[in-house]
Amino acid sequence: MRAEVERFRRLHQSGAPLILPNAWDVASAAALARAGFAAIGTTSLGVAVANGLPDAAGVTRVETVELVRRSAGVPALLTVDVEGGFDDAAGVAAEIADAGAVGINIEDGRPDGSLTPLAEQVARIAAVKARVPDLFVNARTDTHWLAVDKERTLERVRAYADAGADGVFVPGLADPDDVVRVVRSVPIPVNVLYLPGRHTVAQLAGLGVRRVSTGSLLFRAALAATVRTAEAVRDGGAVPESLPSYAEAQALVGS
Amino acid sequence: MRAEVERFRRLHQSGAPLILPNAWDVASAAALARAGFAAIGTTSLGVAVANGLPDAAGVTRVETVELVRRSAGVPALLTVDVEGGFDDAAGVAAEIADAGAVGINIEDGRPDGSLTPLAEQVARIAAVKARVPDLFVNARTDTHWLAVDKERTLERVRAYADAGADGVFVPGLADPDDVVRVVRSVPIPVNVLYLPGRHTVAQLAGLGVRRVSTGSLLFRAALAATVRTAEAVRDGGAVPESLPSYAEAQALVGS
Repeated sequence: MRAEVERFRRLHQSGAPLILPNAWDVASAAALARAGFAAIGTTSLGVAVANGLPDAAGVTRVETVELVRRSAGVPALLTVDVEGGFDDAAGVAAEIADAGAVGINIEDGRPDGSLTPLAEQVARIAAVKARVPDLFVNARTDTHWLAVDKERTLERVRAYADAGADGVFVPGLADPDDVVRVVRSVPIPVNVLYLPGRHTVAQLAGLGVRRVSTGSLLFRAALAATVRTAEAVRDGGAVPESLPSYAEAQALVGS
Repeated sequence: MRAEVERFRRLHQSGAPLILPNAWDVASAAALARAGFAAIGTTSLGVAVANGLPDAAGVTRVETVELVRRSAGVPALLTVDVEGGFDDAAGVAAEIADAGAVGINIEDGRPDGSLTPLAEQVARIAAVKARVPDLFVNARTDTHWLAVDKERTLERVRAYADAGADGVFVPGLADPDDVVRVVRSVPIPVNVLYLPGRHTVAQLAGLGVRRVSTGSLLFRAALAATVRTAEAVRDGGAVPESLPSYAEAQALVGS
């Protein structure tokens, strides 16, 4: 595992930012790996809703770990959204590392829309690093995502870096000046959520961003394609062309 | 359950054929229900690959039943592909009915590409109907799908109807004359797999088809959309518009 984590770490240090697409099941992860993405994240929204559960409610620990186990054969590095850590961040991190993932995202947003107190989140991050030093811990602050305490963003990312986080993630961050301020505040890679129409990867690269992830975007695109295609069949419209064949989809998993 | 099965049965008897889109997880099922589809099938390819397993290998019994259980809150009638019955067709059918589904698809194709002997498949269908009389059993013959014994198609569908099947399904059927021959051979609803570019629902309706399902088409469209969207982010291309929002995706499941 150490070598794979090292490889993942280096993907944050090459010329271009790491583009991290987010999967929610083995099929989406395997299809993204097949398309050439070297590392893949997960979307907690996708994992939750695919399993009939709500996101960001701390109820998908079993499903999240199971996804990592089932994805062991996917030829890509996997980093996993564990929401707030399911009340056992170090334990979950250890399970996920055992199952073969190279990293986690752990967030300070809580189901009620507030932030976990800073000292508590710092302790959580430190506990994960103490238990699984080899895991790449991407510490997410939801100051922008939940639009609470935005002015505390720099304080939070600095504290998480000091606690041992390997990267920080501020979803919802869009204003270039805000991005630059975060990048300058910490000596570790900064992750930004791709927001369609708000920026491009090239622009974010120019601001010093080292990882760009897609969050729930791909999951939502898949849902839209599912419904649109069903409606096209029903209404006699055109269905998408150039789809993977049955055999290509089957070949995404070992048989 | 009896009332729901009756409602499902009637959907095969209205003016237009039943359009049955096929889901593979709770999210796709819930999105299709939200789009107004009254009944939803499952795609065994999608269920298998989403879980990191091969299709048509008889290895997804647990995942298939689990999907039905997790989909209990989806506001649509659910009919479930159980491949060949996982060596326990009646038992699986009972579990699936208990979990709230109104029907199953059971196929005579085998993992090695041959057909289950006719007498054996007839006994299997009869056993399911004896155990769960209220379940709508759609008996699928893979003569066209596997391109074996095509000339035995009518013999098979008649035998399945005589064994108590509530409908028959011949995936791969495309030639209008072949479709009409099957429709005229049995007194129960005939299901055809939608094949893009080969026919429309309106044409199939004119031939007497009573159910049109999408098989793995929506799953493959979702995979394609996933990869295309990730590539668009990476390459600075246009990502799809009019996607469901985070809140809309979250609202697909009860919270």
